[in-house]
Amino acid sequence: MASRSHDTSRLDNTLAVIRSLRDKGPVARVDLGTLNGISSATVTSISADLLQQGLISERPPDMPRPNERGRPKTLIQLAPEAACVICIKLSINELQLVVGDYAGQITHSEHHSIDTLGLSQEALVTLLKDKTAAVCDLALTRHRRLAGICLAVQGVVSSHSGTLIWSPALSFRNAPLAALLEAHFDCPVLLENDANCIASVLATQPAYADHPNLVVIMLGYGIGMSVLIDGKPFLGANGSAAEFGHSKYQPGGALCACGKRGCIEAYISDYALYRQASEVIELPAGDSAHPSESQMQALTQLALQGQPEAQRIFAEAGRALGYGLGNLLTLFNPDLVLITGSGVRGYPAMHDAMQTAIDEALVPELVGSTRIASCPWDRDMTCLGGIAMTLQATDQQILAG
Amino acid sequence: MASRSHDTSRLDNTLAVIRSLRDKGPVARVDLGTLNGISSATVTSISADLLQQGLISERPPDMPRPNERGRPKTLIQLAPEAACVICIKLSINELQLVVGDYAGQITHSEHHSIDTLGLSQEALVTLLKDKTAAVCDLALTRHRRLAGICLAVQGVVSSHSGTLIWSPALSFRNAPLAALLEAHFDCPVLLENDANCIASVLATQPAYADHPNLVVIMLGYGIGMSVLIDGKPFLGANGSAAEFGHSKYQPGGALCACGKRGCIEAYISDYALYRQASEVIELPAGDSAHPSESQMQALTQLALQGQPEAQRIFAEAGRALGYGLGNLLTLFNPDLVLITGSGVRGYPAMHDAMQTAIDEALVPELVGSTRIASCPWDRDMTCLGGIAMTLQATDQQILAG
Repeated sequence: MASRSHDTSRLDNTLAVIRSLRDKGPVARVDLGTLNGISSATVTSISADLLQQGLISERPPDMPRPNERGRPKTLIQLAPEAACVICIKLSINELQLVVGDYAGQITHSEHHSIDTLGLSQEALVTLLKDKTAAVCDLALTRHRRLAGICLAVQGVVSSHSGTLIWSPALSFRNAPLAALLEAHFDCPVLLENDANCIASVLATQPAYADHPNLVVIMLGYGIGMSVLIDGKPFLGANGSAAEFGHSKYQPGGALCACGKRGCIEAYISDYALYRQASEVIELPAGDSAHPSESQMQALTQLALQGQPEAQRIFAEAGRALGYGLGNLLTLFNPDLVLITGSGVRGYPAMHDAMQTAIDEALVPELVGSTRIASCPWDRDMTCLGGIAMTLQATDQQILAG
Repeated sequence: MASRSHDTSRLDNTLAVIRSLRDKGPVARVDLGTLNGISSATVTSISADLLQQGLISERPPDMPRPNERGRPKTLIQLAPEAACVICIKLSINELQLVVGDYAGQITHSEHHSIDTLGLSQEALVTLLKDKTAAVCDLALTRHRRLAGICLAVQGVVSSHSGTLIWSPALSFRNAPLAALLEAHFDCPVLLENDANCIASVLATQPAYADHPNLVVIMLGYGIGMSVLIDGKPFLGANGSAAEFGHSKYQPGGALCACGKRGCIEAYISDYALYRQASEVIELPAGDSAHPSESQMQALTQLALQGQPEAQRIFAEAGRALGYGLGNLLTLFNPDLVLITGSGVRGYPAMHDAMQTAIDEALVPELVGSTRIASCPWDRDMTCLGGIAMTLQATDQQILAG
């Protein structure tokens, strides 16, 4: 009993050291001890093991700062080549494959334009296997092993069972994608909602660390949402919680990609904005049902430059967003709502109407002290989150060798 | 260190024994051990202490069942007179005061009709002090001490700070009611949302124990909601989460008691149903803005008996309820939604339209496997929950003597 408990605590301390190195970059041993509340002797012993396993390396101390006393300290850092993970991001008409090293940094990224809605389940799985195998071959020239894969998907997934329940990017449903890839690649495969990947990255940022009840809304072709409660992702009974896009703005209203009417998504997503605009404004030629980034940028520019029809469309979207956020405030009472995603480009054109709608919808007691803010969009954020989640899920396995 | 850890585990075991006795009623020592995973010797020693403190008593064994072997076992049970708690339920135009004994059973209950909306904060606090003191005097003739008080309020409360943020029953806001009563009665005072009290009772019932993600909706004069996530009440950042009644059905729609428009409450609460009905149906005289139970029963009967206007009003309410539930399913993805409260009397007249609205609102993947059920209303349920929560919060203090 005593030795098992000793082993457990040694393992926990080792994992804590690895995670600190991943979060902070190179750190001196003494600071690792302070960060994790463990003794210097333990850190020294753990880092000796990790050095021997090739999971960390030492690097020369930074130059001392002018008013720092004593000899500069040797830093330790994760060895990027020790392992890699692959994050596959599947969204409408696009597949992104990213390699993350053992330190959690992106070392390779590629995008493929794909007619995702035209794929059968078999065709998708074959495609994922082929593209991932090619990226894996490349990655293994630079990393010692593939530790795991994360498939980050727009839509409803059950992370627990690894099943894709429903995605606006795909025409089939209820597919056990994680198990199919796991059998092929012989490594753990995580299936995650893309918004949850992003929330897991945002939650570690110092600016948001004081907001354990965080809602992240992703604007774009579809509308994503992630809820952190006391810092942990809230998934609901089957993983289909937090589907903000399909909460309702107007019963019986505009047609949504899900086939139902009146969803928030049917007013504020890229396709909804473009659909309305194409009825009243002359827009560049292109697929108006699945507008591209450049099509959306052109439309957004019109609104921001004061074209009245475009302004009206974004204001109506802002009103729908405001009513939707009103429901989130009354139901979740979060500390902070962060609005991001590629569609955040249009947020300035929605903001005032959104604020007016929230004030119209809720008494001040229900708005409470929740802060609503936007956050610049970085298209790699989903993959950074997927990489971090996969490394965290496989750290113990990597340690075991 | 060793002795402190021994004391902690002794205290935990003692509290577990007390809670088992409260949940199960009289139990034999050996069964208490099995229930809580502690040795018979420990149960014997704990029960000796509790007997000596007068917190439990022994009672003669039940008659042996025909096929039970051996000597019947002496049972132990909580001594009801060891302590009492008072639960004060404040709702629109009514104050209920209930005394709960140490075993969690109601031993006294009284109702007062009060013009709650006409009270200032001072007047309410004076009233609560007077009524509670009278009930306390009575209770102390039968119980050795008052362990604590629970104020269960319809509306938004911060349980953490003991502040009533906003209630439809009161015309003032942001009142530190718990602290004001605590100073007067010199015992812990809990301030709780009434729906959370009810959810805490329902969650312990065997029928719902397999549903850790439970949403309870209370229909009545106002609309209450409680969410249990993994069995624990979800309160949000400031306690104002789960305000289902003020989530929206129709932006800009019917006027709600909160002063805003289009809230679910403005369609499905007692006052909303009666307001609509009084425009088109001849109803018994009475306060149509605050209809009484008998007024509501008369109206509900009309709908259930097929009066077309009444049927239409309840169907429209059912549609609003269905759209509201649709949002809850998409956002919380619970295992079970339980609909209760005094307004559940009208649920059969709302049910079909509610179900149609859910199907209209959501694709099957988002309805998922969530079960929606109604639960008969017992007006003492809030107080039973308040009593249980208060005893749980004060058990350690009662033990300390």
